[in-house]
Amino acid sequence: MGGPKTHKAAVLYGAQDIRIEDVPTTDPLPHEVQIAPRATGICGTDLHYYQNGRNGAFVVEEPLVLGHEAAGEVIALGADAAKTTDIKVGDRVAIEPQWPCSACVLCRKGKYNLCQNLMFSGSASSKPPMQGSLQQAYNHPAAFVYRLPDNVGFAEGAMVEPLSVAIHSVRRSAIEAGQSVLVTGAGAIGLFCAAVARISGAAVVTMIDIDQSRLDFAERHGYADRTMIIPLGGNAGESKADFATRMANESLEREGWSAADISFECTGVEVCANICINSAAPGGKVVIVGMGAPQQSLSVFTAARKEVDILNVWRYANTFEAAIKLVSTGGLNIKPLITHTFRLENAGQCLKTVMERPPGLVKSVIVSE
Amino acid sequence: MGGPKTHKAAVLYGAQDIRIEDVPTTDPLPHEVQIAPRATGICGTDLHYYQNGRNGAFVVEEPLVLGHEAAGEVIALGADAAKTTDIKVGDRVAIEPQWPCSACVLCRKGKYNLCQNLMFSGSASSKPPMQGSLQQAYNHPAAFVYRLPDNVGFAEGAMVEPLSVAIHSVRRSAIEAGQSVLVTGAGAIGLFCAAVARISGAAVVTMIDIDQSRLDFAERHGYADRTMIIPLGGNAGESKADFATRMANESLEREGWSAADISFECTGVEVCANICINSAAPGGKVVIVGMGAPQQSLSVFTAARKEVDILNVWRYANTFEAAIKLVSTGGLNIKPLITHTFRLENAGQCLKTVMERPPGLVKSVIVSE
Amino acid sequence: MGGPKTHKAAVLYGAQDIRIEDVPTTDPLPHEVQIAPRATGICGTDLHYYQNGRNGAFVVEEPLVLGHEAAGEVIALGADAAKTTDIKVGDRVAIEPQWPCSACVLCRKGKYNLCQNLMFSGSASSKPPMQGSLQQAYNHPAAFVYRLPDNVGFAEGAMVEPLSVAIHSVRRSAIEAGQSVLVTGAGAIGLFCAAVARISGAAVVTMIDIDQSRLDFAERHGYADRTMIIPLGGNAGESKADFATRMANESLEREGWSAADISFECTGVEVCANICINSAAPGGKVVIVGMGAPQQSLSVFTAARKEVDILNVWRYANTFEAAIKLVSTGGLNIKPLITHTFRLENAGQCLKTVMERPPGLVKSVIVSE
Amino acid sequence: MGGPKTHKAAVLYGAQDIRIEDVPTTDPLPHEVQIAPRATGICGTDLHYYQNGRNGAFVVEEPLVLGHEAAGEVIALGADAAKTTDIKVGDRVAIEPQWPCSACVLCRKGKYNLCQNLMFSGSASSKPPMQGSLQQAYNHPAAFVYRLPDNVGFAEGAMVEPLSVAIHSVRRSAIEAGQSVLVTGAGAIGLFCAAVARISGAAVVTMIDIDQSRLDFAERHGYADRTMIIPLGGNAGESKADFATRMANESLEREGWSAADISFECTGVEVCANICINSAAPGGKVVIVGMGAPQQSLSVFTAARKEVDILNVWRYANTFEAAIKLVSTGGLNIKPLITHTFRLENAGQCLKTVMERPPGLVKSVIVSE
Repeated sequence: MGGPKTHKAAVLYGAQDIRIEDVPTTDPLPHEVQIAPRATGICGTDLHYYQNGRNGAFVVEEPLVLGHEAAGEVIALGADAAKTTDIKVGDRVAIEPQWPCSACVLCRKGKYNLCQNLMFSGSASSKPPMQGSLQQAYNHPAAFVYRLPDNVGFAEGAMVEPLSVAIHSVRRSAIEAGQSVLVTGAGAIGLFCAAVARISGAAVVTMIDIDQSRLDFAERHGYADRTMIIPLGGNAGESKADFATRMANESLEREGWSAADISFECTGVEVCANICINSAAPGGKVVIVGMGAPQQSLSVFTAARKEVDILNVWRYANTFEAAIKLVSTGGLNIKPLITHTFRLENAGQCLKTVMERPPGLVKSVIVSE
Repeated sequence: MGGPKTHKAAVLYGAQDIRIEDVPTTDPLPHEVQIAPRATGICGTDLHYYQNGRNGAFVVEEPLVLGHEAAGEVIALGADAAKTTDIKVGDRVAIEPQWPCSACVLCRKGKYNLCQNLMFSGSASSKPPMQGSLQQAYNHPAAFVYRLPDNVGFAEGAMVEPLSVAIHSVRRSAIEAGQSVLVTGAGAIGLFCAAVARISGAAVVTMIDIDQSRLDFAERHGYADRTMIIPLGGNAGESKADFATRMANESLEREGWSAADISFECTGVEVCANICINSAAPGGKVVIVGMGAPQQSLSVFTAARKEVDILNVWRYANTFEAAIKLVSTGGLNIKPLITHTFRLENAGQCLKTVMERPPGLVKSVIVSE
Repeated sequence: MGGPKTHKAAVLYGAQDIRIEDVPTTDPLPHEVQIAPRATGICGTDLHYYQNGRNGAFVVEEPLVLGHEAAGEVIALGADAAKTTDIKVGDRVAIEPQWPCSACVLCRKGKYNLCQNLMFSGSASSKPPMQGSLQQAYNHPAAFVYRLPDNVGFAEGAMVEPLSVAIHSVRRSAIEAGQSVLVTGAGAIGLFCAAVARISGAAVVTMIDIDQSRLDFAERHGYADRTMIIPLGGNAGESKADFATRMANESLEREGWSAADISFECTGVEVCANICINSAAPGGKVVIVGMGAPQQSLSVFTAARKEVDILNVWRYANTFEAAIKLVSTGGLNIKPLITHTFRLENAGQCLKTVMERPPGLVKSVIVSE
Repeated sequence: MGGPKTHKAAVLYGAQDIRIEDVPTTDPLPHEVQIAPRATGICGTDLHYYQNGRNGAFVVEEPLVLGHEAAGEVIALGADAAKTTDIKVGDRVAIEPQWPCSACVLCRKGKYNLCQNLMFSGSASSKPPMQGSLQQAYNHPAAFVYRLPDNVGFAEGAMVEPLSVAIHSVRRSAIEAGQSVLVTGAGAIGLFCAAVARISGAAVVTMIDIDQSRLDFAERHGYADRTMIIPLGGNAGESKADFATRMANESLEREGWSAADISFECTGVEVCANICINSAAPGGKVVIVGMGAPQQSLSVFTAARKEVDILNVWRYANTFEAAIKLVSTGGLNIKPLITHTFRLENAGQCLKTVMERPPGLVKSVIVSE
């Protein structure tokens, strides 16, 4: 009795090794709040950590609690949090997993997503890692939690993070009402981008994928107006660039599609980046959202001839308040994207399921009460 | 038999003097098409010509056929039209009433709405006037008519012109998904701006007017999320600027409204421009759409302190294709705005009705078969 | 011996009452550095405080040390300063007088100049005031001092602050190479704006003032290519708006001047704002830099007809590093603007001189060793 | 006597086969003016045609008169030219070699450089070709010639075309005063870009090349502040991407260079594009000006991690007036770039010299009286 407090956490020890354990509950630091997570979305980064014990250069060298798409309830306040924010115990909040330094040149310019000192929740990118939300309690800087309106549930609140990627991507595109949009990749991020593009004025949203069931999902729920499946590879002896060109041209010619003013490349696959470039309207923009091979062979002459700009995105900044407003006022329907739900104690099973990519899975959410 | 062709036209001879007459039908010039108008919207400019026989500096000195918000059917092609466009006889089209020179510095920069040599259909701004669409046939440059998809009716097609004002205004604002929008003035242009702002990412649209029935209309049809009626004047001894400040502050404080990221001023009334400035979020933008007194006393210090930009709009450029796409794909619901319909032979009665401003009138359309 | 440390300060007690006194030297807080100011520029804000004991709403209610255009030598570091910056004792630095909260929505967006919690050095805007640089030592947040290269002297370093206003103004204008620029007001800020506009691509810089000697100065030192003096008022019976229109038109017609793509209004005088609007090229921009009457009657119809945007500026953000680089690499010649120099013990005489506006005074600097 | 008029022309019949011949002088069409060219610059495109008888897909299939960087004297006006422009016989003019359709969507948006119907002077891109300026007289659309001020000579006037490429590139970059600029490639276009970047606010211009003499030229004439020579290839076994990364990192580390806010890639070489990406500051921009292999392997992950945008340029639009103003007002010194001059009758020798790339050659100009 009176011993140190503990709570349950889903701890990743290495590749495909998640254990539900009791871990010590630490008090929030002065600038932090303590949160009881209620819903956490699982994304590709989590999958990389789970499947391989690493995400690119970041290796799980000490136990890591995943979870950065999170919403929960505030259960304690650090000493300064009450003074510097209006967050209160009992508030239902979405958590922005980024913690930038607020002092460097990039933070001061408003590009805090590019801060070199930024820490990220649920990631092995810092030593020790900043632990994530797949547990019953964790602490986070008070300045990066955002109150949810009553009409936004926790699962939707957890979607504010991936939605932020889409909002940031669409902002970077500077889309205008009436423009045509192409999205390559009908996974979660592609669907979020399609949804945000639509409520930002896109007149027509076209989606491309290699999986017909994903495209059907996109059309059925209104994320896409038109879809096109592309075969996994080209003809024998056809280069990837030629294949991309042919795919882009065939779609335009055969279907009478208008060229895309804005494309969101959400696969990380080289051939898709080139389909975006080849399908672009003159003066169009290609926003690279997906992450894949670090070097890719791009159709630079085609991009030049049409003055197509290639815009890059890295996470997001200043998006959470906008995202919550959009979900709350109902203009943005993201509920259909949550296709699978698991309980915290089944976190390992959830990650395993995501790894297996069953048909129909868009976004899995891990919940706890 | 074989005499010159004639057709019926609604000809304005001066203030409140519209006559239905037979006028000669002229062949289209090489660069023109001939159109049988099917629907024409009536706007404030038409009203000025009808009510006073003039629109500002432009006086009706010779018979003028009004009508610049028009859609119709192509009934003949000029000699060059077939070569330079893909418009065909029988096409259903919206007509952009502007005819810029295409050669001056402004045209070349894409700002053809600012072309000093621009002619405008249904207006006394050039001598002789470029006659408008309130007749059974008229000619227009082929490059400025746009084919309507099957699912866009003529009355909607006529709305593409006022919709263009709203699209241009929203483009100028560079609105981003999740921003808060204020519209002052719940007349036709205010409602069009609200509609375009919403499908361009506005999270919340607030409308202000002096007429409760207009605000009710705006809320009922989903153009506004929140409305506020403002009294016609301030307290005794209160300056217009103080009144504007008080209105803005009261709305914010009493109702907990968030400040507006973007305001569209659609009344032309000084006090409304100042309400926009006073209600603006820091770094916000006020788009001046409405036209009123040429000199207005603005709250420049408040604008400076918050770095609020005041952006001006003059008609539109490069909007018709975007507008038609937005109406066609269904994202933009403009049908409720067409509240009154008249036949061509009753054009005078239509203008008279518009002049009387009956409750519930948003947009009147004159149709003919 | 061993008593508390003191240093000399120029303390303002009220209107035109500056006293040189010994004041206690306080240690820097952890986040601060201690600076021995070497040069301080005097600007209009300082003059308001000195002349009237107030600057607008901000009244000198307790002793105030002015000085916010400052450069000096770092003489001590707060406990955290060494960890969070690379500033060292002995560094020669320019001091950004702003201290924003770094946490609010505006700070996070990079618009920290609009931060509602911002404190400002040498100003009565906070209680107690954040004391300024007209003393032998003072403390300032380490994150807002910037090292000067060897080839930038202290007096030039003090000019980085007013230069920042100009850089921010020119950035807001988004000027492009080859554009025509108009500057109304050939005082210090007008000259800084002219200088920055020129090195930012202005092909022709025109300046307007009511004082021929200022215009001569501007031409002689290469800040302006062309100048025009305007009479103090208009003709009898001529409104201010008509006067502004006539001035603008006469300049254009008589002199064959091209209309201005970008205007910087640096006087705060209504008629000058209207000259800017009237002289603007279609699609041009008017940047309001000067501060004057809070309500001004502007030519809104003319602005609308030409789609002239009215852009406001409030101080600056993220400018100091750019300003120092521009002074250091020699592209920007600001030395001629420093026309008068005083020693700290003569601070009162300096302010008195500035108040008297002698011919030839552009910028006064108070120095100490 | 009285036979058809002829004039001398340098006619390209195929690879390295230029002949000086008498060709018929045709009257200008109504919309054209007739020009006696006085100076023509030779660029890489001309060299391609001369060296290989083709420029990419465009093959010299009928006799072609090269020359698109041209200035000359107006010697006759077409019937309409006098009505639509203020160009007069005797005017000294620079000639914009582009002739867009002025009617398509892209022309209307101000992006006439992307017009699909554009014709280009001195190029085999249309059939029959639109003949260029390497002759004693030729006709050109009146709307695309621009009067030269007295203080701009014909050779400088001929430089307005390549200068336009640089102006367009720098406009696309939206450079701000105080930014750091990197230019890869110290040939003519690289030097023009450096020159325009400098007068557009660049605080520091760094140039990279494989030829030390070019870098010396750039430093000597003030186009670059700093230069770095790069070896022709990497280490054995080092990929081009690794080589680019190493070059970029070494330059930054060893020399303490600040990362580039804006890079202008002016070589068309893949490794240089990657040096630009790797050297870019977070949030920086890489403008691709040079044309090389149509597919290039780019460091997309590095670009993503820093949100570096890759902006493409295709010729220029709306640049000639700005370019002429900048040359005329003296801010832009382009004379040193004209290193070689030939007479029209020695056009073949000129092209041969350009082909041999002698040290010290930046820009050759062919003149005639």
